[in-house]
Amino acid sequence: MRPSIITLLTDFGTKDYYVASMKGVILRINPQCFLVDITHQISPQDIREGAFLLAHTFSYFPKQTIHLAIVDPEVGGKRRPILLKTRNYFFVGPDNGLFTWVGEKDGVDQVVELTNPEYFLSPISSTFHGRDIFAPVAAYLSLGMRPESFGKRINQWVTLDWKRPEEKGKRLIGEIILIDHFGNLITNVEKKRFFSFIKDQPFMIKIGKKRISKLSQGYWEGKKGEVIALFGSTDFLEIAVREGSAQERLKAERGDPILIERGQ
Amino acid sequence: MRPSIITLLTDFGTKDYYVASMKGVILRINPQCFLVDITHQISPQDIREGAFLLAHTFSYFPKQTIHLAIVDPEVGGKRRPILLKTRNYFFVGPDNGLFTWVGEKDGVDQVVELTNPEYFLSPISSTFHGRDIFAPVAAYLSLGMRPESFGKRINQWVTLDWKRPEEKGKRLIGEIILIDHFGNLITNVEKKRFFSFIKDQPFMIKIGKKRISKLSQGYWEGKKGEVIALFGSTDFLEIAVREGSAQERLKAERGDPILIERGQ
Amino acid sequence: MRPSIITLLTDFGTKDYYVASMKGVILRINPQCFLVDITHQISPQDIREGAFLLAHTFSYFPKQTIHLAIVDPEVGGKRRPILLKTRNYFFVGPDNGLFTWVGEKDGVDQVVELTNPEYFLSPISSTFHGRDIFAPVAAYLSLGMRPESFGKRINQWVTLDWKRPEEKGKRLIGEIILIDHFGNLITNVEKKRFFSFIKDQPFMIKIGKKRISKLSQGYWEGKKGEVIALFGSTDFLEIAVREGSAQERLKAERGDPILIERGQ
Repeated sequence: MRPSIITLLTDFGTKDYYVASMKGVILRINPQCFLVDITHQISPQDIREGAFLLAHTFSYFPKQTIHLAIVDPEVGGKRRPILLKTRNYFFVGPDNGLFTWVGEKDGVDQVVELTNPEYFLSPISSTFHGRDIFAPVAAYLSLGMRPESFGKRINQWVTLDWKRPEEKGKRLIGEIILIDHFGNLITNVEKKRFFSFIKDQPFMIKIGKKRISKLSQGYWEGKKGEVIALFGSTDFLEIAVREGSAQERLKAERGDPILIERGQ
Repeated sequence: MRPSIITLLTDFGTKDYYVASMKGVILRINPQCFLVDITHQISPQDIREGAFLLAHTFSYFPKQTIHLAIVDPEVGGKRRPILLKTRNYFFVGPDNGLFTWVGEKDGVDQVVELTNPEYFLSPISSTFHGRDIFAPVAAYLSLGMRPESFGKRINQWVTLDWKRPEEKGKRLIGEIILIDHFGNLITNVEKKRFFSFIKDQPFMIKIGKKRISKLSQGYWEGKKGEVIALFGSTDFLEIAVREGSAQERLKAERGDPILIERGQ
Repeated sequence: MRPSIITLLTDFGTKDYYVASMKGVILRINPQCFLVDITHQISPQDIREGAFLLAHTFSYFPKQTIHLAIVDPEVGGKRRPILLKTRNYFFVGPDNGLFTWVGEKDGVDQVVELTNPEYFLSPISSTFHGRDIFAPVAAYLSLGMRPESFGKRINQWVTLDWKRPEEKGKRLIGEIILIDHFGNLITNVEKKRFFSFIKDQPFMIKIGKKRISKLSQGYWEGKKGEVIALFGSTDFLEIAVREGSAQERLKAERGDPILIERGQ
């Protein structure tokens, strides 16, 4: 039998004992399972960023992978702990919108509120459900327990709105939704939307004071230091700088607008 | 048979070849063992911080887990390389106090000075015993070798003092011992000590210019940006800021005092 | 059978979905293989740094380990994707010099240009060959496929020049090639070269305004804060500060010169 895989995505960082104690808890319950870090560097409390990254990663893993995702500003408060089963994967974490886009992409089969203390650590701290609730539930799930074992089925769960680009006449107005490790600016303008908007006409992309009138095929295009626009591996419009950081070059921040003008 | 688990805790960071070469050495000796990082971001040479984090992590792992811990400013000098067996776990690393609190918590069964070069890499560098001594010893141990194989039993080893809070009349004076990834300030005031000190009377917590007169249940309490006090997942008094960083807000540093006044 | 090991060395950082999606792709093809991170913190686009770190890590792993290494500023451009087989290891990544020194150290057996789309993800993005080409090839290789399956054998590949120290009369002029996590300055002056140059005579090491006239055995030598010179675990001359950072102390940068004068 192939080993179970549990991935971890959190905003816990890696300098403390938080992530490792979760891994210990999992391995104590299922010493055979494979643990893979997605990232622990989600910006603190940034549910939206966590949800976006999870949605662009989960489907590369083998089917039946269990994704443990914790960005949980309301830990110990009213938000519910849940297990969400999509067509091909399992997700365990807080019910605060983290699973919005994985649900949209893979289709939600079943959502269970985690209420059965039999599968929790005891006592439960009020500040660290990652270790005390989510990790043990993911571990028992990896042993083959059925989702219903962990609590009661629910029909509603929290979802986030996706900020879609707005169209105003000949302008499409989007924004930067993520800045990656290289300083590439990833926007909310999807490839399909972009092409249906520009309709084979000339276009101008405006970001800060910069104007870009063509799409590049890769980061290597243009001269060193040139600002380029391209569709990256996520299918969203990206602004990049060859062998440099667009973030630094344009002093850009998440939330900054990007404009696409058609027919110029 | 379930796989052996070796955890790693160091101050090596993750940008160099240090951690990976240790993992390579281990896998060359025992290709079946599971490697789990606790953290590699202990502040450089900070034995006390390493000892504290290890003590709050080790027991979440399955019994018989081998914890490889290296914060080793005296590498190549006079400090001895040791293997410490507690009731339920194994620890391998330098004899400089790193294992003080795991020993206190789990009880020390046996300590062996690593003197048998048969289980070391050869030649041994004078600057990297992690790779040349500790990693191979942990790996051979994971294959089931007995602790005595690695050297001679010793009866004394280095321990650190725990800085306990001091009581002066109606004041309990503690200090910040760790600042976590979220900027939460973790102090040396334990839950039991706190409650036995305040004796059901009103109290005032003073940190910098801030005054806090109640305990919160979780990070979600209070308004966004409010400074709160609570007992976190380690059972030590913590100062936190809702959806923010107490470290930044209070410009706090490790070692800063915290005062608890009773009966006001 | 022992599990296959695939290591990963990239400049991708760990905050995005890049590394995790590669791991997902690998595990989907070979769910049994062990994944070990070497580092993901190579300076962006710094092929030379990646090549150096890889060369000092690869040989600690078990023979037949597959090293996946991606520092790839020309991704999607003209550089070729390759598989390089040395006497004892496999390497998968871009043909841009990354494998220069592993080839020199272990001897190159065979180099294959990756041209067989059967083993790629489809469609292939133009910006992320790590996920779409290199990860699946490494995974299929770990299942035992022969190198020839992935493309056509080639006889030339890109190599980098090693910047050797220059000798000018009684001076040997080297430079800082790497600064590690502790702020140790690692130079390009190898142990053998150093000793054959100084010929048992007194010597003076000059770095910035600092003068050092002896070699230390370990980081623990000298007083706290003292600047020392020693041969570290890589066999290159290193400048270090006891319980401190030589980088900060000397305000040093990569590329800065180091002078060794003989006979003073």
